[in-house]
Amino acid sequence: MASLESIRHSLAHLLATAVLEHDPMAHLAIGPVIDNGFYYDIKFSSSFSDEHLPKLQAKMNELVGARLVFERIDVSPAQAREQFKDQPFKLELIDELEQSGQPISLYQTGTFIDLCRGGHVENTQEIPGDAFKLTKIAGSYWRGDENRDRLIRIYGLAFNTKEELQAYEEQMLEAEKRNHKKVGKELDLFTFSDLVGPGLPLWTPRGTLIRHQLDAYVWELRGKHGYERVTIPHITKRDLYEKSGHWEKYGDDLFRINSREGKEYAIKPMNCPHHAQLFDRHPHSYRQMPQRYAETTMVYRDEQSGELGGLTRVLSITQDDSHVFCRHAQVKQEFFRIWDIVDTFYGTFGFSLRVRLSFHDPKTPEKYLGTPEVWKSAEDALRAIASERGADSFEAPGEAALYGPKLDFMAKDSIGREHQVATIQLDMLQPERFDLTCVNEKGEKERIVMIHCAVMGSIERFTAVLLEHTAGSLPLWLSPVQVTVLPVSEGQAGYASDVFEKLKSSGIRAEISTEDSLGKRIRASKVMKVPYMLVIGDKEIESNSVTLESRDKGNLGMIESDELLERLKKEIQERT
Amino acid sequence: MASLESIRHSLAHLLATAVLEHDPMAHLAIGPVIDNGFYYDIKFSSSFSDEHLPKLQAKMNELVGARLVFERIDVSPAQAREQFKDQPFKLELIDELEQSGQPISLYQTGTFIDLCRGGHVENTQEIPGDAFKLTKIAGSYWRGDENRDRLIRIYGLAFNTKEELQAYEEQMLEAEKRNHKKVGKELDLFTFSDLVGPGLPLWTPRGTLIRHQLDAYVWELRGKHGYERVTIPHITKRDLYEKSGHWEKYGDDLFRINSREGKEYAIKPMNCPHHAQLFDRHPHSYRQMPQRYAETTMVYRDEQSGELGGLTRVLSITQDDSHVFCRHAQVKQEFFRIWDIVDTFYGTFGFSLRVRLSFHDPKTPEKYLGTPEVWKSAEDALRAIASERGADSFEAPGEAALYGPKLDFMAKDSIGREHQVATIQLDMLQPERFDLTCVNEKGEKERIVMIHCAVMGSIERFTAVLLEHTAGSLPLWLSPVQVTVLPVSEGQAGYASDVFEKLKSSGIRAEISTEDSLGKRIRASKVMKVPYMLVIGDKEIESNSVTLESRDKGNLGMIESDELLERLKKEIQERT
Repeated sequence: MASLESIRHSLAHLLATAVLEHDPMAHLAIGPVIDNGFYYDIKFSSSFSDEHLPKLQAKMNELVGARLVFERIDVSPAQAREQFKDQPFKLELIDELEQSGQPISLYQTGTFIDLCRGGHVENTQEIPGDAFKLTKIAGSYWRGDENRDRLIRIYGLAFNTKEELQAYEEQMLEAEKRNHKKVGKELDLFTFSDLVGPGLPLWTPRGTLIRHQLDAYVWELRGKHGYERVTIPHITKRDLYEKSGHWEKYGDDLFRINSREGKEYAIKPMNCPHHAQLFDRHPHSYRQMPQRYAETTMVYRDEQSGELGGLTRVLSITQDDSHVFCRHAQVKQEFFRIWDIVDTFYGTFGFSLRVRLSFHDPKTPEKYLGTPEVWKSAEDALRAIASERGADSFEAPGEAALYGPKLDFMAKDSIGREHQVATIQLDMLQPERFDLTCVNEKGEKERIVMIHCAVMGSIERFTAVLLEHTAGSLPLWLSPVQVTVLPVSEGQAGYASDVFEKLKSSGIRAEISTEDSLGKRIRASKVMKVPYMLVIGDKEIESNSVTLESRDKGNLGMIESDELLERLKKEIQERT
Repeated sequence: MASLESIRHSLAHLLATAVLEHDPMAHLAIGPVIDNGFYYDIKFSSSFSDEHLPKLQAKMNELVGARLVFERIDVSPAQAREQFKDQPFKLELIDELEQSGQPISLYQTGTFIDLCRGGHVENTQEIPGDAFKLTKIAGSYWRGDENRDRLIRIYGLAFNTKEELQAYEEQMLEAEKRNHKKVGKELDLFTFSDLVGPGLPLWTPRGTLIRHQLDAYVWELRGKHGYERVTIPHITKRDLYEKSGHWEKYGDDLFRINSREGKEYAIKPMNCPHHAQLFDRHPHSYRQMPQRYAETTMVYRDEQSGELGGLTRVLSITQDDSHVFCRHAQVKQEFFRIWDIVDTFYGTFGFSLRVRLSFHDPKTPEKYLGTPEVWKSAEDALRAIASERGADSFEAPGEAALYGPKLDFMAKDSIGREHQVATIQLDMLQPERFDLTCVNEKGEKERIVMIHCAVMGSIERFTAVLLEHTAGSLPLWLSPVQVTVLPVSEGQAGYASDVFEKLKSSGIRAEISTEDSLGKRIRASKVMKVPYMLVIGDKEIESNSVTLESRDKGNLGMIESDELLERLKKEIQERT
C-alpha cells in the first residue's frame, strides 16, 4: 500500500494539474506535504476564491479515476529551464538546485510536469478517492517573505480512509470552537496591538493572573527538588554567543543590536549561556553539586511574520526554564526529578503524555555542535533513562537541539490532538565550551554536564494548548474570577456584600454583580466561564446560605456559607 | 558670598592652570562642576599618576592666595581658534558652538585662559583655601566614547568650609566600606561576566531571593489598592514610539533592532506606551475607572559604557512600574494611594523621605512634549497635592519627564546621603497621543490621564542603596539565609538536624553547618551577615532549646525551640 506521505504528495501534483487547467497562466510555487494533507502555493493570473475549489476537486477526482502513472525524468538545469520557461518560481528553484549541485528531476502525470525530487504513488489508482478534500485558501508569500510575491495557498486534507477524513474534520470543527484566539478574546486574556506588532501579545490582568498561577504551580513543584531562582538580563554582547556557538548557528533567528558605541549585542533566544556564566562566577565543590537554577523569563526569536499566529507562534516567548549543573553520575536522578515534576503538572490537567527521544540527524551534522562520540554518549544515556522509567517513547532523528538530544513530551488533549509541551535536554557541549567544572573528591577539576528543562515549554504555547483543551473552562484554581455573587434583587444586597467580603478575605477571587437583571448577570458569568455562581434570595438569607450553581455540574442546591468556603478552598488547594 | 557652584567651577580653571604649568603640552578637554566638587579631563603629553596630585594642589592653593581676577572676554570663532590652536579638544568645541550659533566667551585668570560660558567667582580670594582637595584620578574618554581619545580625569572635592569637607570625606570613607559592589560580592548576590558585558548584572540565587522579596512586598502593599498585574513583551515595532513621541526624543538611548524582514523594532526603555495599548484594547465605562496596571519588568537603555558601574548605572533596569488610568477628578486620590505605599515601604527600612517636584524647564521646551498650558495644569496639580499632603518638598525645574512633571522621592540613608528613589508622574500627554478615553455618565468619550509610578524606582538601584544603607546587614525577612544551625560537635548532629527541619517546614530559610570547627562556622555566618545563629551543645539538648546569637544584638541566651519559631515568624511577618 502506498504511504500516506506519497499519497498526499501526489495529490499536490494533481491539484496543480487542476489549477493549470483552470488558469493556464497561473504561476506555480511549491506544493509540500503537511501534517494533515498538502497545499500548493499559486500566483493566479485572474481572481481566485474558494468558490472555485469544488471545480478543482472534481478535476482531481477525475485524475485519480484516470489511473495515471507518475514518471520520473532526470534532466539537466538547461532542460529544466526550458521546461519551466513560463514559471518564474520554478526557475528560481532550478537556479538554487544548480548552485548547490543537486540533481534535478521532474515528475510527469498525464500531461502535467512538475519540478520534484519525488516520493509519489506509482499510479493515481493508489489514491483513495473519497479520503481527500480541498478545504480552504489562505494568503501567503513566495518564500514566506512579505516583500515578495503575494500568493494563494490552497489547502487539502488527505487520509487513508473516508472515516479518517471524517474523524479529522469533526476534530477540526470542535477545535475551531475552542480556538484559543477566540476563547482568549472572549475571556479577555490577551490582546495584540498594530503599533506593537504581530507576535507580541499584551497580557491583560486576567491573562496575567493565569500565567502567574501556572508559573507559581511549577515553582511549587520545583521547590521540593531544590531549584533556586536566578535573574539574567535579556541582552548580551555578541561574545557570549560566539563562545557558546549560537552566534553562528542561530543565524537569522537572532535579534541583533548595534549599540551607540558600535558594539554588537543580541537579544537572548535562550537562557543557557547566561546561566552558565552565573554558575561560573566562582568554583564549586562537589559537595555543592548539583546547582539547580530556574528562571521564568522571555526569550526572543526573529520569526518570519507570515508564520506568527495567536499564542502558538510568537516573537516574545516566556520560558519556564531551568538548568541543572551536575556531575555525570547525577544525571539520571536529576532527569527523574524533572520527570516527576512534568508528570504531576500535566496529570493535574488530565493530559496524557508520551515521550519523543529527539536525537540528532547524522545526515546533517552541520546543524549541530560537537563530536559524534559526545552525541552517542548523550543519546545512549537518554535511551537508558527512558527505558528505565518505562516510558511510552519513540525516537525521532533530526529533532535534537543544537547542543544535545532531548526528551520531548507530547500531551494528548481532550479532543485527541497531540501537542509538544515539556522538554528535558542533556547538554555535554556547553560545559565544554564554557569550561564548566566542579572540584571533585580528589581536589581535581571535573567536567560537569548541564540539563535544560522547560516544564510548560513556553507559557504562551501552554496557555494556548490549555485553553483549547478546556475550551476556556479553566479549573477553579486557575480561573481569573472564581466566584460571582448574584443577589436576586436590591433587598439582598447587604447580605450578598457580606458573603463577597468573606470570600475576598479568604483569598478567593470573587466578583459581585448587582446591575442588570439576574438573567443578564447569569449570562455574563457564563460567557466568562466563571466556575461558580452564588445566587442569593430571601430564602438563602434566612438559612445563612447561598445557592451554588456550578459551571460544570449545574445547580448544586443551597449550601451554608462556611461550608461553601471550606469546599472552595479545598478545591483550589487540591487543584481539581 | 560666592555660590558653591561658582567656587567649584573656578577651581576647575585653577586645576587646569596647574596642569599646564606641570605639563605645558597637555590637551585640556572639559572641566565641569559635579555634586561634590569638580573634575577636569586631560590628555597628558607625559605619564601622570596620582603622585602628582599634591604638586597640583599646592599650585592651586598658591593661585587662590594670589587673589586673581576672573575676566570674561567675548570673541569671534576665529579669535577663539587662534587662542586654542594647540588645544584640539577646545577646537572641536569651538566648531560646535559656531555651528549652533552660540556666542563664544573665554575666561582669563592670571595667564590662564579657558573656553567657558561663565559662572565664576570674581576673585580667587572668594575661594576658601582649606575647603577643597584633589582626591583621585580615573580613566575617561573624550566625549565618553571609548573609540576616541583616552583621557585622565582629575577629581577634586570642594565645599564652603573645612568642616563640610571633612564631614564629606568621613562619609565617603564609611560609604567605601559599604560599597554595594564590595558587599554584593561578599554576600554572593550578583556578578558580572566579560562575555555578557558591563552594565548587565547576573543575579545569583541569593540576590534573586532579595529582589523577589522586595518585589513581593511592593505587591503586597499595592494589592490593598486594587493594582493588577499585566505582562508585555520587551520589544515593539517603531510605530508605537513614533506615536508616543519617544522614537524622536529618546534618540541614542534606544536600543534599535532591524528584523530579518527589515522591520524596525526597539527594546523598550519604558513601559507606558505598551500599557496604554493594553488599556486601549476595549472601551471602558466610567464605572471601570481607575484601571491600575502594574508590572515588574526590565527596560533597556543604551548608556555609554564609561558611565556604567555596579548596580547604580546598568543597561538592564528592572522597574516595579505601574500605570493608573483614571479620570481627572480621581488624580489626587490615586496620588495619595501611591504616596501611602511609598511611605510605608521606605519607612520599613528606616529611610526618611523628602519630595522633589520635578518640573519642566521653560527655557528648553525642545526637551519636552506638549503645550505650556498642559504643563502648567499638570504642575499646578502636583504642587497642590504636595501642599495638601504637607510634604517636605522643593521644586526643581528641568527634572521633569519627557511627557510630564514628577514627584521624586529622595531618601536619606543611614550615613546621611540622599538618593533619588520612588517617583510618581502625572501624564496628560500620552492619553492625548494615544487618544485614551473612558465613557462618562453622559455616554460621551472623556479624555483620561495616566499616573506613572515606580516604588523602588529600579530594583537594581534600590538594592544598591539598601546594601549601602544597611552595610549588607539586611533585616531578617530579606536575608537570603535567615538562620544557621550550628551544633557544637558531632554529638548534637541529630538534634540540630531536627531543629533545622522544623525551621525549614515553617518556611524559614535555614542552613545547617557541621563541617569545620565551630569557630570557623561562626565566622562564615558572620561574613554572610546571617541574622541569627543557633548554637547547640548538650546543655541546649537537655532543655529542648538553642542558644540564640543575634547578628545585631549579640548573645540572647538560651531559648526554647517552639518559642524561637514564634519569635522568628513574628519578626519576619512584621518586617522589623
